[in-house]
Amino acid sequence: MDMTNKTPRHELVLVREIDAPREKIFKAWTTPELLKEWFCPAPWKVTEAELDVRAGGRNYFVMQGPDGEVIPNEGVYLEVIENEKLVITDAFTKGWVPTEKPFMVAVVLLEELPGGRTRYTAKALHWNEEDKKAHEEMGFHDGWGTAADQLVALLARM
Amino acid sequence: MDMTNKTPRHELVLVREIDAPREKIFKAWTTPELLKEWFCPAPWKVTEAELDVRAGGRNYFVMQGPDGEVIPNEGVYLEVIENEKLVITDAFTKGWVPTEKPFMVAVVLLEELPGGRTRYTAKALHWNEEDKKAHEEMGFHDGWGTAADQLVALLARM
Repeated sequence: MDMTNKTPRHELVLVREIDAPREKIFKAWTTPELLKEWFCPAPWKVTEAELDVRAGGRNYFVMQGPDGEVIPNEGVYLEVIENEKLVITDAFTKGWVPTEKPFMVAVVLLEELPGGRTRYTAKALHWNEEDKKAHEEMGFHDGWGTAADQLVALLARM
Repeated sequence: MDMTNKTPRHELVLVREIDAPREKIFKAWTTPELLKEWFCPAPWKVTEAELDVRAGGRNYFVMQGPDGEVIPNEGVYLEVIENEKLVITDAFTKGWVPTEKPFMVAVVLLEELPGGRTRYTAKALHWNEEDKKAHEEMGFHDGWGTAADQLVALLARM
């Protein structure tokens, strides 16, 4: 029995065509100092990041809100294909230790388009429909959309 | 904040010293026809297996009980180091699609001992204490212990 195609993905998706080569986008996703420039929709920001960009490596960042809220995010890379694909989850800390609450798998796909452009796909997969809906209500589309705008602005400066 | 060492592992562990080189044990874990010989405590047996032994590859097997019960198990490899380490979870199907119920991470460690022997460590990590306890009550120690006995018997025939 192959469940692969039957398993619901509980998926949220953002797709953009970006006027920058995928190497630059990959760099913006994988370099702590660059991630801080765009990853959180303002006025939130990333104040700290540790990105050990390899399968099983630590993906850690701290988000800070305008009223001093501090949200640490601990996770690992599941898959890394340079300039093509990143898969990250909060289901484990490094060493594959299960976390308190597996919430999502983030999949970033970078496809080359003519003229040095890139089709940028960012997906959030969840373990169940409740988490997907909660993520949607937390503002997935606005939040990831604003972050993508900030990414595009950063790419123009890179 | 590094949560790595603070995160509870909800861990069950089996350790054995086995009189066989780790290459043979790795082979018994990663070859479908061999897995069928030992992996389920009799009278249960593995009737089908697909083992795509690489990070992200499918780990699939079907267990069949004495009264015809059929239990398919779908998962992926998180990490593969030949003859040394296997990390497998049921939290995803291939393509990193989240499954209905992430239950455990299995970690198999093979350490070389003098005289062609191996220290065999099989761990089950869980996302919470309830799952760990449920696994313990399902008979982790007896079950994995009996499977290890069957593995040792197979290794003697290999």
